[in-house]
Amino acid sequence: MTTSRPRQLHLNAFLMNAGHHDAAWRHPGTQPERVTDLRYFQHLARTAERGLLDSVFLADGLALFNKVRHNALGGFEPLTLLSALAAVTERVGLIATVSTTFNEPFHVARKFASLDHLSGGRAGWNIVTSGTVAEARNFGQDEHLEHRLRYERAREFVEVATRLWDSWADDAIVLDRERGIYADTDRVRAINHRGEYFGVEGPLNVPRPPQGHPLLVQAGSSEDGKEFAAQYAEAVFTAQQTLADGQAFYKDLKSRLARYGRTEDQLLILPGIAPVLGSTEAEARALEQELTDLQVPEYGLAQLSGMLGVDLTGLPLDGPLPELPEERDINGNKSRFTLVAELARRDGLTLRELIARLGAGRGHRVFAGTPEQVADQLEEWFTQGAADGFNVMPPLLPGGLEDFVDHVVPILQRRGLFRTEYTGRTLREHYGLARPDNAAPAPAS
Amino acid sequence: MTTSRPRQLHLNAFLMNAGHHDAAWRHPGTQPERVTDLRYFQHLARTAERGLLDSVFLADGLALFNKVRHNALGGFEPLTLLSALAAVTERVGLIATVSTTFNEPFHVARKFASLDHLSGGRAGWNIVTSGTVAEARNFGQDEHLEHRLRYERAREFVEVATRLWDSWADDAIVLDRERGIYADTDRVRAINHRGEYFGVEGPLNVPRPPQGHPLLVQAGSSEDGKEFAAQYAEAVFTAQQTLADGQAFYKDLKSRLARYGRTEDQLLILPGIAPVLGSTEAEARALEQELTDLQVPEYGLAQLSGMLGVDLTGLPLDGPLPELPEERDINGNKSRFTLVAELARRDGLTLRELIARLGAGRGHRVFAGTPEQVADQLEEWFTQGAADGFNVMPPLLPGGLEDFVDHVVPILQRRGLFRTEYTGRTLREHYGLARPDNAAPAPAS
Repeated sequence: MTTSRPRQLHLNAFLMNAGHHDAAWRHPGTQPERVTDLRYFQHLARTAERGLLDSVFLADGLALFNKVRHNALGGFEPLTLLSALAAVTERVGLIATVSTTFNEPFHVARKFASLDHLSGGRAGWNIVTSGTVAEARNFGQDEHLEHRLRYERAREFVEVATRLWDSWADDAIVLDRERGIYADTDRVRAINHRGEYFGVEGPLNVPRPPQGHPLLVQAGSSEDGKEFAAQYAEAVFTAQQTLADGQAFYKDLKSRLARYGRTEDQLLILPGIAPVLGSTEAEARALEQELTDLQVPEYGLAQLSGMLGVDLTGLPLDGPLPELPEERDINGNKSRFTLVAELARRDGLTLRELIARLGAGRGHRVFAGTPEQVADQLEEWFTQGAADGFNVMPPLLPGGLEDFVDHVVPILQRRGLFRTEYTGRTLREHYGLARPDNAAPAPAS
Repeated sequence: MTTSRPRQLHLNAFLMNAGHHDAAWRHPGTQPERVTDLRYFQHLARTAERGLLDSVFLADGLALFNKVRHNALGGFEPLTLLSALAAVTERVGLIATVSTTFNEPFHVARKFASLDHLSGGRAGWNIVTSGTVAEARNFGQDEHLEHRLRYERAREFVEVATRLWDSWADDAIVLDRERGIYADTDRVRAINHRGEYFGVEGPLNVPRPPQGHPLLVQAGSSEDGKEFAAQYAEAVFTAQQTLADGQAFYKDLKSRLARYGRTEDQLLILPGIAPVLGSTEAEARALEQELTDLQVPEYGLAQLSGMLGVDLTGLPLDGPLPELPEERDINGNKSRFTLVAELARRDGLTLRELIARLGAGRGHRVFAGTPEQVADQLEEWFTQGAADGFNVMPPLLPGGLEDFVDHVVPILQRRGLFRTEYTGRTLREHYGLARPDNAAPAPAS
């Protein structure tokens, strides 16, 4: 994209039940009784849209895990929830997490094409490979597909989905009532894919999406994950604890794009940030402490066990982490494992301290301060080569998102760092990313 | 259900692109350019709701087939579209077709649970087994699973989905902020299913749906289909051409319920009707003729070839049907094959005449007349043991649905045959069907 506008940052609101902090639902400012109520999420999406945010995003997993005893769970499947939100919003992008390990490309391509049509070009797909045995066991498998093979499958999956979206030329629908020709079927073609993981004849049974393809998003930061992102992703969500880590990741990932014939502006990097806001710094820190005090240690320990692939049950909370395996032996989320292990090692944290540090962001950066201080942090990362924007993870919902929109966004706008109106209609337009061309199918031979 | 209210009929609006007639999109009264526009379907759903209809319904197929050259196709995936419609309607039920042959029960159970929560208890699942090789070829299979095995898989699929919906007790969420207990996990239990087709550990990652289970709908009228319906379905859509056929089907299906321990009022039978409305009978017949004149014979022939499993390309339109195979040799939609074959034989139709007869309803009953005459037909079938209600298939949309709501519904209301206000909130309440109990999971051993 060539543009004369100054570079501005991009903001995504990561929506999560009663909030991202694992004790959010116990805080009097949240509404855990509403996490299965569409109107609750409607309010969140409209708040993001009121703040002119680029998009809202839903994570996902395909098993209950051990989450529900001590944490609120709505459990909406992302595509159904975002389709409902498409009907009650006008501009904000809608990014759904869908796994390539436990799905079929025909279904997934079709659902995203539907969401893109339904929303007038606002769909994004956060491509995940799923990391747990618990998920495999809901799909007839006792063991989980190996990390490298999951990415191999993901590559073929995305290739097939892309060909399905392109199976209709943009101008295939001619709608000639007089001659009785609705579509020029020379411009709607089978894809005849036969690969390692999938066989898909096509074409898709939905016209090409308004955006050409939905925005492709990725969030794995392992070696496999970064290489996958460099090849396919247009936006990357990532967990980075320090400016230096953020800069290193940014530089590393951007440098990989050239080998896929891509330029650095074709992929945006959005580190996560969990802003704990207060009207004074003391107030923000008090809220952070209040949330820490509400944590259920057993829950934190179970979450930490899951992230590290090590059962920590029964270990003394005020002792250190035990010996951990190497990243190469982890078959789940490799990058999150490494991040948490390094955080504990670097800062010499006890289990209790680590649980407190992970409570608000599950490994994403947490920052407590005033709106001005939060804006300073965002500006620093944005101008110092660590971010093209941010994945905003409010510790409390809806309050934390309302505060961000009402108090942080205006500061960013005054500094010229963020839009003051939506200038585009589609998610790609918000992110400044081109609509992919479709080499229109040639006439039938 | 014991109730003192007089028996009333149930109405479902079957939504279909520009209308059910295969030439609808060529008619000046339709809007084929809007079939990928959410606002178009929003108008249709709100029109159904204005008419106090029980539900709207979307059919589905998992391949493009040969439909798109001569007919309008929006192609929305039903669950995404109905989720969007959930956000802009309040009362009308939302019935989505989803195949058990090309899906996994964990995904399907979860999506319907999501839609049921999103809509406040208005979700219904039309369970289909999919009938074509074209669909199999989009899912890595060269051949299509045999008819009997498709139903075997469907039975296991529905059993697993039901157990997943029941994997949370209705009162599992306790939301005890003080003690930090969100859900009583003794009341959320794995299902540990290992069967012929599926292995699913569970539990589901969504709380039990407001309706307990979404309404289970079925539309196959073959021997396998009827037996499946008798065991599982709570509403059945069926194509019946004559009152006598309708009565025979009704009696047959209702008589099968006892062997599954069910009573006759636990399953509602809704034959399809494509009402071609006019303010006079002559006007209705003129509209019917106008639509016949707009048909593209090649399209009709291709559709007929698909229904009969016989390639009719190039046969003289004014000649008879060729020799047909036996129903037992059909591996697609057996009941539709038999209906069409008998219709042609009984009335001695040429191919052209058969294509005209199938144009408005694809085998469902077509009736052209005034609102009064249509109401008479509905009343006759309803009172003479052929129907508990109707699957209304307007030949033109949105006009045909508006006319039905504005002109036929008031007549039915005046006759005491249809509700004058919604008395329930959920789809089950509209249909007068009980919410299934959940034998709450016992405490962990």
